[in-house]
Amino acid sequence: MYEIDVPFEEEVVDITTDITERQEFRDKYNPTGQVPILVDGEFTVWESVAIARYVNEKFDGAGNWFGRGTQERAQINQFLQWYAYTLRLGGGAFHWNIFGCLIYGEKPYSPKFTAEQNKGRTLLYEAMGTLENYWLRDREYVCGDEVSYADLAAFHEFVSHEAGKIIPDRVWQGFPKIAAWFKKLSERPHAKTVSEWQYTNVGKMIRGELTASMFKRKTAVLKGTEVFSGHNHGIPYLNEKAEDYFKRVEKEGAAVA
Amino acid sequence: MYEIDVPFEEEVVDITTDITERQEFRDKYNPTGQVPILVDGEFTVWESVAIARYVNEKFDGAGNWFGRGTQERAQINQFLQWYAYTLRLGGGAFHWNIFGCLIYGEKPYSPKFTAEQNKGRTLLYEAMGTLENYWLRDREYVCGDEVSYADLAAFHEFVSHEAGKIIPDRVWQGFPKIAAWFKKLSERPHAKTVSEWQYTNVGKMIRGELTASMFKRKTAVLKGTEVFSGHNHGIPYLNEKAEDYFKRVEKEGAAVA
Repeated sequence: MYEIDVPFEEEVVDITTDITERQEFRDKYNPTGQVPILVDGEFTVWESVAIARYVNEKFDGAGNWFGRGTQERAQINQFLQWYAYTLRLGGGAFHWNIFGCLIYGEKPYSPKFTAEQNKGRTLLYEAMGTLENYWLRDREYVCGDEVSYADLAAFHEFVSHEAGKIIPDRVWQGFPKIAAWFKKLSERPHAKTVSEWQYTNVGKMIRGELTASMFKRKTAVLKGTEVFSGHNHGIPYLNEKAEDYFKRVEKEGAAVA
Repeated sequence: MYEIDVPFEEEVVDITTDITERQEFRDKYNPTGQVPILVDGEFTVWESVAIARYVNEKFDGAGNWFGRGTQERAQINQFLQWYAYTLRLGGGAFHWNIFGCLIYGEKPYSPKFTAEQNKGRTLLYEAMGTLENYWLRDREYVCGDEVSYADLAAFHEFVSHEAGKIIPDRVWQGFPKIAAWFKKLSERPHAKTVSEWQYTNVGKMIRGELTASMFKRKTAVLKGTEVFSGHNHGIPYLNEKAEDYFKRVEKEGAAVA
């Protein structure tokens, strides 16, 4: 919205609290309880990529954001799908080193979550390999020589890792194209504004100024990336065995799923 | 392509073999080695959703497939994003009960993968809860009263579970809207054609006619859904510890990521 000059009112949903876990929030805005969410008069849309497509279409954003022709659009769509199954899930490296630790009452980098941290980091490094060797192989931006929404999505992913100091310097050095691209995107006029909350709050978490006892939320913010004790963290039944959850669903159906 | 009458030549890529793991395949078609892939003259596009958008746009598919107006399109986009992080990852239930077992030399339903099976099933049941209670709450199809591409994507996901008998009858009974919707989509003219390979081959796997020793592939087909021994299966370094992989990336960079 900043990039294409669409005026909006911002409301920060503090995801360290339980606000997005409450049923009233889910009924009113988003059944999954995830953010971001756009409310445009009577119409509500969630999922960042869907929001961006909606805003760009409604407010006639320039062609570079989602592509000027069929093939360019296909490239950007292809990137956004690839991203969902790779780079986005690599966010588990950040989540299980910083955010998830605090949710579950531990300090950042808790060894309790080594398996999840390893999985997240593996997905992250793999995704970085494809980004360096394929998407950025011979061009300035991930889908061509102009910036597109695909860059903004991917950039935002690296902001978490940067804020949480997840990627060591010696790894950045092995991925020079990503490093140059990230720097270029960091220098865009609105980059700081949209990533300020992350840098500020993640900084507090790392320095121990924001501790587990200050976290009211009890579930993960990054579904699909994590297993812990054989049970997914994205669900509200944290202390229930998977097998018991399955039995409840078998007996009571959609109401408890 | 069947639905909007676009002529094409089909080439089945047998994913029980190692064909998609070979570098020449990756260089020529898709760096991730995943299918489906569309080759349209000089232009190649992969990722099913990106392919569908491309074909629908290029061949002027009817408005129902990706939406007739801004809000309808936003709904379909929202569904396709939701789907990527939930229902699609619930495919781990199928993968780790059937396909993954054979890849890693075990019989279907191997108890070796209980944690992965549980995670997949948890994600699947959760996603089914949202599908039943939200997407299909008061309408015929997932994004409205007309069929859209969102239905085709979600339908195809359930085909794997149906072919692999992953969802027990008593669970189907608890999700009556999904069951009715699945039946309706199964009865579309082309449903059988596009799911034939799955039904035939998964049937052979369950009956023990297609065994682990017949599988040439060594890596998962469903990235991001699984952890095993703290190491992701989607990568080619199957017998390497995560920590050793990280050290290699730190030392050698993108070339080994």
